[in-house]
Amino acid sequence: MTAPASNPLISDRDVDFQLYEVLDTESLCKLPAFADHSRETFTLFLDSTRRFARDVLFPTYRLMDAEPPVFRDGRVHVHPLMRKLYPQLVELGLLSATRPAEVGGQQLPLTVYSLASAYLMAANLSAYGFVGLTTGAAHLIEAFGNAWLKDTFMSRMYRGEWTGTMALTEPQAGSSLADVRTRATLAADGTYLITGSKIFISGGDQDFTENVVHLTLARIEGSPPGTRGLSLFAVPARRPEGGRLVDNDVRVAGAIHKIGWKGIPSLALNYGEGGDCRGWILGEPGRGLSQMFQMMNEARIMVGLNGVATASVAYQEALAYAQNRPQGRPSWEKDATRPQHPIIEHADVRRMLLRQKAIVEGGLSLLAAASWQSDVAAHGKTEEERKRAGLLLDLLVPLAKTFPAEKGFEANTLAVQVHGGYGYSTEYLPEAWLRDQKLNSIHEGTTGIQGLDLLGRKAMAAGGAALQAFSEEVEATVERARRAGVDPAWGDALSKAMQQVTELTMDLGAAGMAGEVERMLRHSAHYMELFSVLAVAWRWLAQAAAAQEGIARGGGDRGFYEGKLAAAQYWLHTELPRVSTLVSLCRSGEDSYTRMRPEWF
Amino acid sequence: MTAPASNPLISDRDVDFQLYEVLDTESLCKLPAFADHSRETFTLFLDSTRRFARDVLFPTYRLMDAEPPVFRDGRVHVHPLMRKLYPQLVELGLLSATRPAEVGGQQLPLTVYSLASAYLMAANLSAYGFVGLTTGAAHLIEAFGNAWLKDTFMSRMYRGEWTGTMALTEPQAGSSLADVRTRATLAADGTYLITGSKIFISGGDQDFTENVVHLTLARIEGSPPGTRGLSLFAVPARRPEGGRLVDNDVRVAGAIHKIGWKGIPSLALNYGEGGDCRGWILGEPGRGLSQMFQMMNEARIMVGLNGVATASVAYQEALAYAQNRPQGRPSWEKDATRPQHPIIEHADVRRMLLRQKAIVEGGLSLLAAASWQSDVAAHGKTEEERKRAGLLLDLLVPLAKTFPAEKGFEANTLAVQVHGGYGYSTEYLPEAWLRDQKLNSIHEGTTGIQGLDLLGRKAMAAGGAALQAFSEEVEATVERARRAGVDPAWGDALSKAMQQVTELTMDLGAAGMAGEVERMLRHSAHYMELFSVLAVAWRWLAQAAAAQEGIARGGGDRGFYEGKLAAAQYWLHTELPRVSTLVSLCRSGEDSYTRMRPEWF
Repeated sequence: MTAPASNPLISDRDVDFQLYEVLDTESLCKLPAFADHSRETFTLFLDSTRRFARDVLFPTYRLMDAEPPVFRDGRVHVHPLMRKLYPQLVELGLLSATRPAEVGGQQLPLTVYSLASAYLMAANLSAYGFVGLTTGAAHLIEAFGNAWLKDTFMSRMYRGEWTGTMALTEPQAGSSLADVRTRATLAADGTYLITGSKIFISGGDQDFTENVVHLTLARIEGSPPGTRGLSLFAVPARRPEGGRLVDNDVRVAGAIHKIGWKGIPSLALNYGEGGDCRGWILGEPGRGLSQMFQMMNEARIMVGLNGVATASVAYQEALAYAQNRPQGRPSWEKDATRPQHPIIEHADVRRMLLRQKAIVEGGLSLLAAASWQSDVAAHGKTEEERKRAGLLLDLLVPLAKTFPAEKGFEANTLAVQVHGGYGYSTEYLPEAWLRDQKLNSIHEGTTGIQGLDLLGRKAMAAGGAALQAFSEEVEATVERARRAGVDPAWGDALSKAMQQVTELTMDLGAAGMAGEVERMLRHSAHYMELFSVLAVAWRWLAQAAAAQEGIARGGGDRGFYEGKLAAAQYWLHTELPRVSTLVSLCRSGEDSYTRMRPEWF
Repeated sequence: MTAPASNPLISDRDVDFQLYEVLDTESLCKLPAFADHSRETFTLFLDSTRRFARDVLFPTYRLMDAEPPVFRDGRVHVHPLMRKLYPQLVELGLLSATRPAEVGGQQLPLTVYSLASAYLMAANLSAYGFVGLTTGAAHLIEAFGNAWLKDTFMSRMYRGEWTGTMALTEPQAGSSLADVRTRATLAADGTYLITGSKIFISGGDQDFTENVVHLTLARIEGSPPGTRGLSLFAVPARRPEGGRLVDNDVRVAGAIHKIGWKGIPSLALNYGEGGDCRGWILGEPGRGLSQMFQMMNEARIMVGLNGVATASVAYQEALAYAQNRPQGRPSWEKDATRPQHPIIEHADVRRMLLRQKAIVEGGLSLLAAASWQSDVAAHGKTEEERKRAGLLLDLLVPLAKTFPAEKGFEANTLAVQVHGGYGYSTEYLPEAWLRDQKLNSIHEGTTGIQGLDLLGRKAMAAGGAALQAFSEEVEATVERARRAGVDPAWGDALSKAMQQVTELTMDLGAAGMAGEVERMLRHSAHYMELFSVLAVAWRWLAQAAAAQEGIARGGGDRGFYEGKLAAAQYWLHTELPRVSTLVSLCRSGEDSYTRMRPEWF
């Protein structure tokens, strides 16, 4: 069997297509925040990132998957390769790429950064994980910390000297942040004494930088119960004291043996076992959850990108395998002495590959669209523009987080299936990516929680203005496709589905306002499913339009555009009709699992 | 957190329900072959099997998953526990339970055996795997071997002294058996000299019995190419010669590092490297594939049972976890100082559990129905009865193999999801069952191949007689449900879906007869999906009928029956409507992946 071509991780041609043909990313440079940028600076950043991802990072993936971090003598020792990789990741300018110049950043649009970082995630998601977590934690300090915290903590994190974590989850509370018990007691010097336990803290310890800063949710003594009583603290593993770093009484209590993401440890931490753990509050007491949630959109976009990237690298591997693995013959070939054909010639293998392509590239397009709204929400010219983009961003995020996690897992499963018996072995990589992918439906808000967020909050937001804005975006795409010469039946089908979803949302909203909250939220999982299908259909229609425009321009890229049209056709013909079935289900009053009692199972 | 109750693997109550309320398994005892049996003997067999599964086998599962077989000095060393377990499995009478008395069997109906073996698979599918493979191989010799082979090989295998394998797959051919290259050359003594390579041979070597017999597909020199040229041979690892066993030149070339089923090795074997590998032909030359396929229905039923069992044990674990893990509160509980509730009280968790229940118990019911037809096909009173049951069996097998593999994998994924972050760790078992489950869509005919078999062969069989018989079974169930007082809308919906599938099948068949084979088979994957939904809806309507009958009888089992009705409602309301959408898709002419070219991806 021929070895497959070296895995491209993400298709360069597709990234260019999403940035400059589907979207007009250069137009972002008209915004003051991005005025120093141009297509050239975007390309420089993308090129250095993808080169590093392919040449340096990807070759470390299997090694780090095979040798997870070791917890020994109270410290976590990650794979020794991280000592070399982290400084190189820092060198690429990733930590503060999207941050403003005044904190040392490059003010790069998130739209560009997202697509660049997808290469790193596809190459080795754990190694990149340390970067993403550190950026997120530093960004919190940038947003809410005082000058001393910025100077002491944030700047070192952005410079790559220290890393950071998000420390929300506790063993007894899981997703229920209202039940966070970690306590903070004001000390005489204005710091807080922290005591409590956190769990599933990714990157919670490592041995390649001198310090780790945990952005920690805790409850100040005397605060109210529930989420209102939570405050946010920067709690370093080692604290600056008298010009040096001293132990800050944060102990690693144990390591979770994860099934994937094996390069980055997930830890249980104990704070203040020795009564000497200090935390520095960010902003006002009682604002912890809302502060954390101001970073949540970006964190969830990063999870969505991880989902797309993990599905993409497996899809590329399955594609190369299917092109090179001979097995069987087409049905018209009855002569068994003739050579076998590559399995890509079997219709069902092509179906599996096209489905993967539809999920991967539809997902990437959705993430690019969400990132775009994030850029406009933060840096748009007018208040109105920013507000509208903010509503769209909020609406898109649960979809952009969940679709790649759930359908990406299906795509990863198909990549295993395309490999047949070999896919079931550790000699091939698809099984590893399948393990990696599963986390994305669990961390940063489970799929169930995203469904409640989408239906109960985001789709109803601002009295329907968010959904209205989304509907306008869909209609603009329908119009663009029509102008480009895409089969008008596709646009009509999308418009009709949008209309059905709008009406369903209004009806469910009315039920909620009438106090029937259970009935409103009962089918939140199905609502998430149907809205995901719709949103990805929107992205596929946009891609079909851009492909038709590309064909009209002529040139040598016809095959690429034909592939886009075939994948768009697949999604619009195979998936979009499900919206109507699911809308009926959400309306039907179907109550089997709400009336099911625990003792009946 | 409270430890969950000990995992029951499969619900005893449900097994009783399937055997004696949904089906009338006692009535099988009216057939001469089963005349010595009664509900009492069934219960004895079931009880000893389930007790062994729970008390002995399940505790070994994690140990064998953690320490896979080792390939050292040309031999495979399986987990040392197998030395104790295999004789105990033999002692239970499993190897020949369904075989006739003249070969030492118990003549137990497959219907009973299937449900009993599901416990063993749920407890430790690898350990049971050695049994299933040995029975299958011995059964082939029973059916096609001469007296000497039966005496020398078969009887030792049924007695548990030797084990057996199925050796079909080759590295260069995979699923394409037409390309099998292993050669057989007639020797002077009437045996054949075998040379060639096989791969993915489960149980291909072990160190707990003195011999392994490989039922091997090979091509006799001078035979035609393709599948017509294949013959079936018994090729032992060690052959009897001069009253003792001598090496038969079958070498283990390597072990596949599988991601699941870790207790049983999957091997690459080389035959005749030293020119001294002997095989004994079974029956006539050129009949190999058809002989192998006469055992295929039972082999695929066993795969389906593995799928159901693996989904079941994970579902039971998730159910216990959800009943015991407190996290969050219902939406009406605003007071965060009140204790958290078990997560089973969250609607979306209950949805995930009810979906698992619907898949597991719907799947078990489908396997029981297929096993029933197998019993009648083999032992029915009249030729006509046997023939009809044979057609039904052939039609049900691709469904009974694929549904548990594909939807079982989804159920296993949900079991991980219910466990949240803990589900993503090796400290909990659901991740192991998820790994195990993936194989079932690959071995014994991939899902893609099952789809082609269902649509291209089974659904069209006997000029529509198979589909007609299935439709009669569905209508009988609709009638039973109506009589029992089940909501008539459920039966109507099932009848309508059946009608749609019948019409679709006839139209696709007509296309095939008109020479449009590509168009006929294009949507075989969607056809498999819609037919699976239909077949499981049929099983859920049968269960709803039996549950209503149970409620009408009165007694203390109301909760169990209510759970059945809720799961039936779930499937009929949530899944059955998809049939119509999928039928439209199959009719639509949608051709995205057939027209997609390899270079467009």
